[in-house]
Amino acid sequence: MNNATLAPDPSLVRERPEVYGDAHPKELLRAIVEDGEHLLPLENQHILAADQFDRATLLQLFRLAAKYESNPHRFSTPLQGKILISAFYEPSTRTRLSFESAWHRLGGDIMSITDRASTGIAKGASLADVGEMFNNYADCVVLRDTREESLSEMMGSRRIPTLSAGSGIEEHPTQAMADLYTILKWRPALLRADLPPAQRITLGIIGVPGKMRTVRSLLKICSVFPEAFARIHVFHDGAGADDSGLLPELRSRGLDIVEHDGGFDAVVPQLDVVYINAIAWVGNGFERHGGQYRLDEHTAFKDDAIVLHPLARGDELSTRLDHTARNWYFSQARGAVFLRMALLTCLVQRKGRVLDVV
Amino acid sequence: MNNATLAPDPSLVRERPEVYGDAHPKELLRAIVEDGEHLLPLENQHILAADQFDRATLLQLFRLAAKYESNPHRFSTPLQGKILISAFYEPSTRTRLSFESAWHRLGGDIMSITDRASTGIAKGASLADVGEMFNNYADCVVLRDTREESLSEMMGSRRIPTLSAGSGIEEHPTQAMADLYTILKWRPALLRADLPPAQRITLGIIGVPGKMRTVRSLLKICSVFPEAFARIHVFHDGAGADDSGLLPELRSRGLDIVEHDGGFDAVVPQLDVVYINAIAWVGNGFERHGGQYRLDEHTAFKDDAIVLHPLARGDELSTRLDHTARNWYFSQARGAVFLRMALLTCLVQRKGRVLDVV
Amino acid sequence: MNNATLAPDPSLVRERPEVYGDAHPKELLRAIVEDGEHLLPLENQHILAADQFDRATLLQLFRLAAKYESNPHRFSTPLQGKILISAFYEPSTRTRLSFESAWHRLGGDIMSITDRASTGIAKGASLADVGEMFNNYADCVVLRDTREESLSEMMGSRRIPTLSAGSGIEEHPTQAMADLYTILKWRPALLRADLPPAQRITLGIIGVPGKMRTVRSLLKICSVFPEAFARIHVFHDGAGADDSGLLPELRSRGLDIVEHDGGFDAVVPQLDVVYINAIAWVGNGFERHGGQYRLDEHTAFKDDAIVLHPLARGDELSTRLDHTARNWYFSQARGAVFLRMALLTCLVQRKGRVLDVV
Repeated sequence: MNNATLAPDPSLVRERPEVYGDAHPKELLRAIVEDGEHLLPLENQHILAADQFDRATLLQLFRLAAKYESNPHRFSTPLQGKILISAFYEPSTRTRLSFESAWHRLGGDIMSITDRASTGIAKGASLADVGEMFNNYADCVVLRDTREESLSEMMGSRRIPTLSAGSGIEEHPTQAMADLYTILKWRPALLRADLPPAQRITLGIIGVPGKMRTVRSLLKICSVFPEAFARIHVFHDGAGADDSGLLPELRSRGLDIVEHDGGFDAVVPQLDVVYINAIAWVGNGFERHGGQYRLDEHTAFKDDAIVLHPLARGDELSTRLDHTARNWYFSQARGAVFLRMALLTCLVQRKGRVLDVV
Repeated sequence: MNNATLAPDPSLVRERPEVYGDAHPKELLRAIVEDGEHLLPLENQHILAADQFDRATLLQLFRLAAKYESNPHRFSTPLQGKILISAFYEPSTRTRLSFESAWHRLGGDIMSITDRASTGIAKGASLADVGEMFNNYADCVVLRDTREESLSEMMGSRRIPTLSAGSGIEEHPTQAMADLYTILKWRPALLRADLPPAQRITLGIIGVPGKMRTVRSLLKICSVFPEAFARIHVFHDGAGADDSGLLPELRSRGLDIVEHDGGFDAVVPQLDVVYINAIAWVGNGFERHGGQYRLDEHTAFKDDAIVLHPLARGDELSTRLDHTARNWYFSQARGAVFLRMALLTCLVQRKGRVLDVV
Repeated sequence: MNNATLAPDPSLVRERPEVYGDAHPKELLRAIVEDGEHLLPLENQHILAADQFDRATLLQLFRLAAKYESNPHRFSTPLQGKILISAFYEPSTRTRLSFESAWHRLGGDIMSITDRASTGIAKGASLADVGEMFNNYADCVVLRDTREESLSEMMGSRRIPTLSAGSGIEEHPTQAMADLYTILKWRPALLRADLPPAQRITLGIIGVPGKMRTVRSLLKICSVFPEAFARIHVFHDGAGADDSGLLPELRSRGLDIVEHDGGFDAVVPQLDVVYINAIAWVGNGFERHGGQYRLDEHTAFKDDAIVLHPLARGDELSTRLDHTARNWYFSQARGAVFLRMALLTCLVQRKGRVLDVV
């Protein structure tokens, strides 16, 4: 009798939209030979910087991420009995849930801190003491704070592994690991030992190295794989873009980095991968940069070029690209969960439960 | 030596108060023949409206709820390995914990969002993008927001089932399902195919259909079972009570609805069930309505009449009714957990683990 | 190629600092004969006061805590299928995570409330009704509130066991249990039936009994073991320090308590244990007291004396004591998790899963 009400609102009929870029984690998996030895440096480590591990360690990490992504329901209990403290003293949904989802999918338990006001820090507890307490309560800590120095203050007394989930303007290392993981899934051939120079890719980054932690961490992790990049173009709004002197250091590691103030339209036809971000976290708020840059269906992309974005996005990235093959930013967000699963497994020394050969 | 201190403060000696209405979920269980086929329409669905499913589907849902309630410890793992995002952008304890308890009792894991300020939405992320991300992190989403349109914005990109836990003034579908489940537990005979007209019940609703989502959803779900109700009396404060034109639509589905501005004392002796609510959620705040109505021990209830209330309550419902047989509102809150367990089980396609015949 | 970046920042190289006082929970374990009968009074109880149980019950509780602490990974599932509501209406990290960690380590699930603003209480729900709802959602409640009367209001309708995690200025019973547990781990001989008077210890407490819940609860639990204490010195800032008349009551139970306004330097060489706290929770804020007292490396401690502090600390306790044998405050915080594990196990009637003889 209620047939009328059974027909759902058409705006709510969900097609299952294809997320580009999820097709082939197995190709990356096959491109890397499993070698658990290289994951040893991750055990019980703090994760503060995107470039703190060597190439072999990162590759094995990517391999494990691809293994998880290829068969997301195969491993559901490696972290059973392990407890994560997920402490976000700066607002976040995406990154917090990404980490927590990763931990839950592996069977672990979680205690969340979602704002500073609800914590003992409000009554003057020192961060070092809070860190000391965390040792008693959990097996791992994921930490985000607006102050870069908070992480090192807390880590000083930490005996359990602690990951930065974004520290002020400094670093967002797991985001960068997920970024590179996405690029390697898209083109596993970049890992070939005999990669011809002509097959190196050209990466365009729209963002401000001096102010955006995502951009800083991406550039740093690229410097661990300099042979994969023919050139990296960085587009920003000019003066003060690299106050920290990061770019000279990275050039010395073998990256060919060119900075631009404008001129994106002339360069975009050469770019294999375009990474764009407009938000910089500064102090307790954020700034928007790069108002002159925008990606949409009229952008003169190279054939087969893909777009990455750490999200959340604003006007700089048109939603009209969402349903095109350029869209690897949703895949990037999806892959980040598996990358974090791989990293967390190694940090808490449970890799033995998921590797084929131990 | 401390005998004095061993005698507890008398105010804290807890009797185990009888909660009326919990006695017979089994009677409802026996009144409905199990038929898993009818639960198929629930698989992977969004739940936005109390009347979006047909009678047979709702009955099987109520049966499963009664099965859970009859033996609350029998099924503890059907949702093992499944992750719920519990996103409450509007303040709530009761509804959030009711959903989360339902999910936990079935063995699933949960990630909670308890306020908008701690989320990426604060930095301008679009709801559609947040919804897209949720696809990567979880298997199901429970969502409450003050804006009715938030749900459809987020659901547009959602590939995992999403339930409304209350949307502005529009709907609160699971509350209505729990309301009707309570009424059917109280009087399973209402489901008899040969129900004599004289045994139909008369329902009184104190509330404002145009402004209260609980009242709107209750009326809508009643319209799926029009044969059970002789008449529905709606009591409110007059003008503007049904701006949305809901009542004419429901009358066309077979409900005999009479509106009143006052005059409750004259009608209450005819009412089998009295449902009362005084709070309307409007925008970011709430309004109180129906100041002329109040239920207490002096109300001239019909013999055997029961009282329902979605809670939280104010002065409109006297606590002096709590320890009387009128009080089915505590049973209603208790049953809501089991109703939600049943619904969630079906949405994430785990009903095969709890049905006797699959 | 990135060898430079592989060398971690020296400030982040974590030694595994020795936490004093963790060495010998087994000694305490051996000092108490297991007898599950004495844990019966804990079943399904509300925990409001540090002195609500007798000596034998507390000893068995300490024994179970020592059992957990001696082998932290042995028992991971006693609370499987049980749900905790962790409701902190007053800011807290340490105590909340301590309780939640205890529950998770035993395999249970948790629903957290971390601030009053996100709850139904904001819309005027009565605490008694909230308590009634909690019965439906969980198996146990941990509750902190700035108002002392909140706990008894909510407990009135609670059929599931409820623990105070700190109530205004009144009590913090599990903190006191953890304090005494620490003292007994440090010196299990205090439990000897034939303890010579000369081996009783002298305890110094820097704090305000009339305003500090931690101090009040510690004094109350000491009164259950008066034979262990030769004398208790209480140091505060003078008038109004014991408005509540607690000290005369405790003296009548056999404690020899001496109050001081200043003069700490003269007494400290006699003290075996120095307990210090500077924060009093009053209303919605806190006060600092005892500015004249400070413990540091120049304090003239007795040989072998230890320091306890409920944390969070301020200037009253120098971090220069952290890496000395005086520091039992970190052990105290660590032990609190195991003490809470023991207490929670008994409250929800799962002690049968962890006792050797049942």
